Amino acid sequence: MKYADSGVNIDAAARSLARAKATVRSTWDRRVKSDLGSFGGLFQPAPGEPLLVASVDGVGTKVLIAAQAGRYDTVGQDLVNHCVNDILVQGAEPLFFLDYFATGRLDEDVLPAVLAGFAQACRENGCALLGGETAEMPGLYAPGDFDLAGTIVGRVREEDLIDGSAIRAGDRLWGLPSTGLHTNGYSLARKVLLETAGLALDHVPRELGVSLADALLAVHRSYLPAVRALWAACGRPAVHGLAHITGGGFPDNVPRIMPPGLCAVIDTRAWIAPPLFRLIAAAGDVPPAEMYRVFNMGIGMVVALPPEVDAGAVPDLAAVLIGEVTRGPTPVDLRLA
Amino acid sequence: MKYADSGVNIDAAARSLARAKATVRSTWDRRVKSDLGSFGGLFQPAPGEPLLVASVDGVGTKVLIAAQAGRYDTVGQDLVNHCVNDILVQGAEPLFFLDYFATGRLDEDVLPAVLAGFAQACRENGCALLGGETAEMPGLYAPGDFDLAGTIVGRVREEDLIDGSAIRAGDRLWGLPSTGLHTNGYSLARKVLLETAGLALDHVPRELGVSLADALLAVHRSYLPAVRALWAACGRPAVHGLAHITGGGFPDNVPRIMPPGLCAVIDTRAWIAPPLFRLIAAAGDVPPAEMYRVFNMGIGMVVALPPEVDAGAVPDLAAVLIGEVTRGPTPVDLRLA
Repeated sequence: MKYADSGVNIDAAARSLARAKATVRSTWDRRVKSDLGSFGGLFQPAPGEPLLVASVDGVGTKVLIAAQAGRYDTVGQDLVNHCVNDILVQGAEPLFFLDYFATGRLDEDVLPAVLAGFAQACRENGCALLGGETAEMPGLYAPGDFDLAGTIVGRVREEDLIDGSAIRAGDRLWGLPSTGLHTNGYSLARKVLLETAGLALDHVPRELGVSLADALLAVHRSYLPAVRALWAACGRPAVHGLAHITGGGFPDNVPRIMPPGLCAVIDTRAWIAPPLFRLIAAAGDVPPAEMYRVFNMGIGMVVALPPEVDAGAVPDLAAVLIGEVTRGPTPVDLRLA
Repeated sequence: MKYADSGVNIDAAARSLARAKATVRSTWDRRVKSDLGSFGGLFQPAPGEPLLVASVDGVGTKVLIAAQAGRYDTVGQDLVNHCVNDILVQGAEPLFFLDYFATGRLDEDVLPAVLAGFAQACRENGCALLGGETAEMPGLYAPGDFDLAGTIVGRVREEDLIDGSAIRAGDRLWGLPSTGLHTNGYSLARKVLLETAGLALDHVPRELGVSLADALLAVHRSYLPAVRALWAACGRPAVHGLAHITGGGFPDNVPRIMPPGLCAVIDTRAWIAPPLFRLIAAAGDVPPAEMYRVFNMGIGMVVALPPEVDAGAVPDLAAVLIGEVTRGPTPVDLRLA
């Protein structure tokens, strides 16, 4: 099975966005400092000021698992942490977050639980939950269904901006462990596990040791504490590049930070994909290349560091050496087992 | 018919949000300068800096009309202009906007049209379309359905902040015309016009002179040019308060800017509600009080000005005198015909 079989067509989205590039750029002036495809948008209100870094995201059909499991306090955390990571990769620390909650019929118990999740993750990341919109839209959403979107705004000084341009041949690539699927690939995971394999959310697969609901709803990790620890241990300039492994996996996210002419060689044999990923691959007969394009496979953040820095020695980081930067014609060379 | 009959329960949303207030506030520190219920959230990154003003919104089930009419380039404009107005009422000019587009099955022609709408309104408001998220979520949205959310960030100097605290007894209230329903009350409008009255979107009701689709998809007006003209004509300090008339109408939006002990007395006989509103009221037998709580009734922005300022004399503003500020126990006294 492939991702497109679950009804999600990454290529169609990419083609549509490519067509719209000129339209989007027509709204930009010299205050916009990022290009399309960067993790967060960069905006400098006036010359010399710190850059505002902003990103918007959803949690995909993880919301359907949450609704089905009746567990509403984790998806808000997922979304905040996802957004925090998307601006962290440019060196930004979060200022504030705004949420959008849309549902078919407003359940007075669900909304407070969702907001509690947003608030918990905002507190953990030192980020204000500055605003939100609650929309009750009968006819668009089924009564128990809901969708979430969130926008984060952070800030970074010009001299602290991380955009990958510091990456050099010889840099080593480190992976930081994910806590699960994070917020990507849920349409495929649902199709494979709940439909093809016919498993129930409360089923406890032997290889997982927890219920499918627990495994699938594991909260997307915020890498803010880990990256702060790295900055403290190695100094800010040592962190040459950071890539958040979200939709599109290694093949789509690592190239977003690679300078022209350099190639991130990643050897997937350097770590073992956690059991949930192996269960999906086996149950859905999903080819390895497809797995690595849809899922994070156990690594949610890739860090490029100079060879003399040993991220493995930083306490509590659990960093795994997964590859290195070489000269090469393609931005990423993902070596499958 | 009442709004709740269309499946939207404003009171349930208000109760849920009231329960969540303490949770949301738990994420705030001294950098947050707004309270819950203000149009935009205010955030001051450091003392003395200009305030960032942020707001998130959707366009409600106007998206269903757009999908049904196959017209995708206006709802993006609706959303940008709505957001622009929500921070304009605090005196802020927009910096950038981010969009969220979610659909059941990505149509390669729809997304560029929606983005073109976002881009057009961003250009018109001098605002960068800084980022966006496109989500294909089979199982949550029907194939042709989609939802939109948008977040705007603007800025205002502390001394230019408008929060209604300058409003005085004796101030006069002026209304600026809306272009239609803007983005509120669509669930009720759809129920009344398309279900109860059984009208088709391409039907041209005699009293409208245009098709229902044209009337219902009229683009939400940005009041940025009008308010700039007012600032230029009367000086910034003369604008004591601005209220964007969105969901909840006059009764819910005017109180958001009224200082304690003052009452906005609004006489609805001062203007004639445009034909679309009268058509909905008649076809759905919707009581006047309900109409004024769901719809803008022809006035999308209320401006509080000192009595000596004649907004009616400002060219192209088309401002209508709709009431005045008195001392009184309730923040608004809406006088129905």
